[in-house]
Amino acid sequence: MDEFASIRHWTADRQSAEWQRSRGVVLGIGDDAALVDGNFSIADIKGPYEWVMAMDTMVEGVHFVDATMEEEDIGYKALAVNISDIAAMGGIPLHALVSVSVPKSFGPERMRRLYDGLYACAERYGVAVVGGDTTSSPQHLVVAVTVTGAVEAGKALRRSGAKPGDAVFLAGQPIGMSAAGLHGLFAQQESRSASGVELPAALVQAHQRPEPGVRAGRMLLRRGTCHSLNDVSDGLASEAWEIAEASGLALILHEYKLPRSGSMASYASRAAVDPLEWMLYGGEDFALLGTIAASDAEAAQAAFHAEGLPFYIIGETEAGDPGVRLIEAETERVVPLAKRGFNHFR
Amino acid sequence: MDEFASIRHWTADRQSAEWQRSRGVVLGIGDDAALVDGNFSIADIKGPYEWVMAMDTMVEGVHFVDATMEEEDIGYKALAVNISDIAAMGGIPLHALVSVSVPKSFGPERMRRLYDGLYACAERYGVAVVGGDTTSSPQHLVVAVTVTGAVEAGKALRRSGAKPGDAVFLAGQPIGMSAAGLHGLFAQQESRSASGVELPAALVQAHQRPEPGVRAGRMLLRRGTCHSLNDVSDGLASEAWEIAEASGLALILHEYKLPRSGSMASYASRAAVDPLEWMLYGGEDFALLGTIAASDAEAAQAAFHAEGLPFYIIGETEAGDPGVRLIEAETERVVPLAKRGFNHFR
Repeated sequence: MDEFASIRHWTADRQSAEWQRSRGVVLGIGDDAALVDGNFSIADIKGPYEWVMAMDTMVEGVHFVDATMEEEDIGYKALAVNISDIAAMGGIPLHALVSVSVPKSFGPERMRRLYDGLYACAERYGVAVVGGDTTSSPQHLVVAVTVTGAVEAGKALRRSGAKPGDAVFLAGQPIGMSAAGLHGLFAQQESRSASGVELPAALVQAHQRPEPGVRAGRMLLRRGTCHSLNDVSDGLASEAWEIAEASGLALILHEYKLPRSGSMASYASRAAVDPLEWMLYGGEDFALLGTIAASDAEAAQAAFHAEGLPFYIIGETEAGDPGVRLIEAETERVVPLAKRGFNHFR
Repeated sequence: MDEFASIRHWTADRQSAEWQRSRGVVLGIGDDAALVDGNFSIADIKGPYEWVMAMDTMVEGVHFVDATMEEEDIGYKALAVNISDIAAMGGIPLHALVSVSVPKSFGPERMRRLYDGLYACAERYGVAVVGGDTTSSPQHLVVAVTVTGAVEAGKALRRSGAKPGDAVFLAGQPIGMSAAGLHGLFAQQESRSASGVELPAALVQAHQRPEPGVRAGRMLLRRGTCHSLNDVSDGLASEAWEIAEASGLALILHEYKLPRSGSMASYASRAAVDPLEWMLYGGEDFALLGTIAASDAEAAQAAFHAEGLPFYIIGETEAGDPGVRLIEAETERVVPLAKRGFNHFR
């Protein structure tokens, strides 16, 4: 690995300095640190802005194993989950720093593929990769990514802004698909000899190549009626709890309103799993969960649909002790939802 | 670990929101991402500035093992090495994001100590910790840190700006002390029964708690005569090569001018190691290596000394093919220095 130990080796000529300048980059990878213009104007933002910064890490054996992710997927997703954090503030992602700790077994070809995936994601979302490092690792692969972006000053969509009487919405793919895909990938591995397990590509895609909701976040911020926002990285129940606690109120979700993917439900039935478990506790969906003024909820939905973006109104907020309750579809019983989040390999 | 899995748990109440606002922080840890004022004024900088961004990772078994670093040291150093990258651009460190991947064996007490060290460093250098994450790790501890800072627009000290005829200098502690400390820590471990190895505290300190040269970087930037700068993270020879290649010239170093710590030299003699090996290839010293207009070199040295800061003029640059040559002290022979850098546990 020695000759490939520098991040420069893996990132050279992937993005032109000229293109990076359009993201404010004065100096990219290759010195002790990167430089970004403190006054550069962001086409999409009029007036003053704030910087948005997020950092998330993916660890082999915790977030992925050989059976669940190809190298390209690892690189892609490590960046995508960070872009999702910027999207969940209503921001525009701009820059990334990438640190990869690589076991000896990994080899240059697999490293190249990891960076191929990372740059595919960077290109798709317009993110300039400006720094980071590579180190060796005694055992497992670790990919840590920092993404910075920008948002209109004072306008970021926090999790703490929900108001009683808001509508609760989900913007993005139906929930539970990533967890179903993960389940299926493990099942495929176990029955490798049998051609057996039928696993819809959409579920695998949801797990390996999540789509951060940058456009959705920007639309929500511009409406001015979105009061709180989170991405569903740790599962719907857990993220709803985050909003409830940060905002000091209760979220009431209606089971029958939750977006349910047909391929997920059909795979769950074959796998003898309750699909609701994946939908509530599955995690890594990266849809956006938020609350919006009830008076604007249907108009917002129409605006999303006009742009070809999914938008589901799934409940409402209520004043009261922080909590999350689900109204069951069949019984109409109201059940409290546990706070527990997603745990990849329980 | 589950209840301690959130970075919020380890970072709550460590820094006040009010103090963080003095670093431009609008929103710290606790949401999907942090927010920093895009227009905040930095007392030290008049006029427009650029953002400086660096990311470096420390991996157990690669950068440290139980015998070489306490938990507090790991946290401290993981942040310090990133601050050093900002210093090496002449910048002011402002914000940090921290990602820790923790093996089950680590436990809450050791995590607390790691963050104690991290925040001790943050406090010392005025850095606001604004984000990051914690994940579990199947085997070894990994600490990835991103630091952002600011620097006067167009003034950052790059490695590519050296000019022929510059003086080459080192600002900071004598080189080779960290490598000597590391050697000594291993030797102590091997002869644990014997009270044997005498290891000067300064060498241990140099390895475990490096001092990034923020003040030195700022002084160099303000002089306006410093043409190139690097921190000596990978060893003097390797960093000199970086400047030589980036600037397209040769660096000539005089062995007799290299700062040599007495405790390092005396420990090297007892350990039967050539001290020059540690000084040239030892790494992790985090002194600043740079070039400065020859006409200002002595005045700069006097200014550093007046501030109680070390400054050594160790050579000069020459037009010609990129390279690094050492003039040996005894023989006055000119020998080319290899490009190889530091490898922690060869």
